[in-house]
Amino acid sequence: MPTIFFYGPKLDKDKSREMIKSFTETASKLTGIDESSFVIYLRESSHENVGVGGELLEDKFKEK
Amino acid sequence: MPTIFFYGPKLDKDKSREMIKSFTETASKLTGIDESSFVIYLRESSHENVGVGGELLEDKFKEK
Amino acid sequence: MPTIFFYGPKLDKDKSREMIKSFTETASKLTGIDESSFVIYLRESSHENVGVGGELLEDKFKEK
Amino acid sequence: MPTIFFYGPKLDKDKSREMIKSFTETASKLTGIDESSFVIYLRESSHENVGVGGELLEDKFKEK
Amino acid sequence: MPTIFFYGPKLDKDKSREMIKSFTETASKLTGIDESSFVIYLRESSHENVGVGGELLEDKFKEK
Amino acid sequence: MPTIFFYGPKLDKDKSREMIKSFTETASKLTGIDESSFVIYLRESSHENVGVGGELLEDKFKEK
Repeated sequence: MPTIFFYGPKLDKDKSREMIKSFTETASKLTGIDESSFVIYLRESSHENVGVGGELLEDKFKEK
Repeated sequence: MPTIFFYGPKLDKDKSREMIKSFTETASKLTGIDESSFVIYLRESSHENVGVGGELLEDKFKEK
Repeated sequence: MPTIFFYGPKLDKDKSREMIKSFTETASKLTGIDESSFVIYLRESSHENVGVGGELLEDKFKEK
Repeated sequence: MPTIFFYGPKLDKDKSREMIKSFTETASKLTGIDESSFVIYLRESSHENVGVGGELLEDKFKEK
Repeated sequence: MPTIFFYGPKLDKDKSREMIKSFTETASKLTGIDESSFVIYLRESSHENVGVGGELLEDKFKEK
Repeated sequence: MPTIFFYGPKLDKDKSREMIKSFTETASKLTGIDESSFVIYLRESSHENVGVGGELLEDKFKEK
């Protein structure tokens, strides 16, 4: 049953695989729930749709 | 006020209509809250952005 | 894999059962995905933690 | 740490900026937490993926 | 229809009112959608259930 | 900025710490984003508020 949502940058296929594998192993070990019960959603979030510290992330990166 | 989020595969227009209608009727009946107060979000999730049992769903389907 | 979140009033045990059963049957039929893959979270939300139309729901109910 | 999710129509860049700025200032003032700790996600939701009152929003708008 | 979720510390009644009022006014103005359509959920999150920078928030505060 | 939500059983303090530490390290390594930017919410979900396969989790466990 446990469900994990990751809101962050788009990951390529290999990194998605590794994140899903690692999160599931860790969470299964700590909860004692079988790995097969875990669902993980990778929810992409681009710099034009996130604000940090009151500022659009896209603007923050341009400043640098 | 009640709000429902559905994370799953993309549905065509008719199925979206039917899901929204059925969820709203059921939830309105069970809560006693008027149907007009219900909002439902259909949040599409593709096989390359979901992990089940520690594995990318895309990979799971390829194996079969 | 599909996951449903319901944000609304607390439901008693029988209504929780009925909502979970109905949502799962409907969503399974419409997506073609086996019922066993569906997870539904009932997330309780009280009147002092929701705003509708710019007003605390608790205040809205008092006015009536 | 506080996190805000906005599910609604797509906003242009200037409106996104203003929403993020205003939400952050308000929430920082009310919680006493520094603005730098706030993260806001603007999650776009189109009319074909939302149901209101048991009806697809897209259909609701066509009727008018 | 738009929906806002706030994950953060518990707010007292007056601050909850002010946050809901301000978020709704701002978002209504920027989207052009009537205030009556907005729903805001204040989802309390305590220091023992949040991690920042890899550390439990509770531990972070103790260190100070 | 990335944000992770974990919906699952309540964890004791040490397991919460370990989950937060492990998720953050993994996600930081895979995204290349500094650990300090990660926020993780542990959202407890009890057996009377989750449905799996159309059945209340509480009922599922009683059957066994």
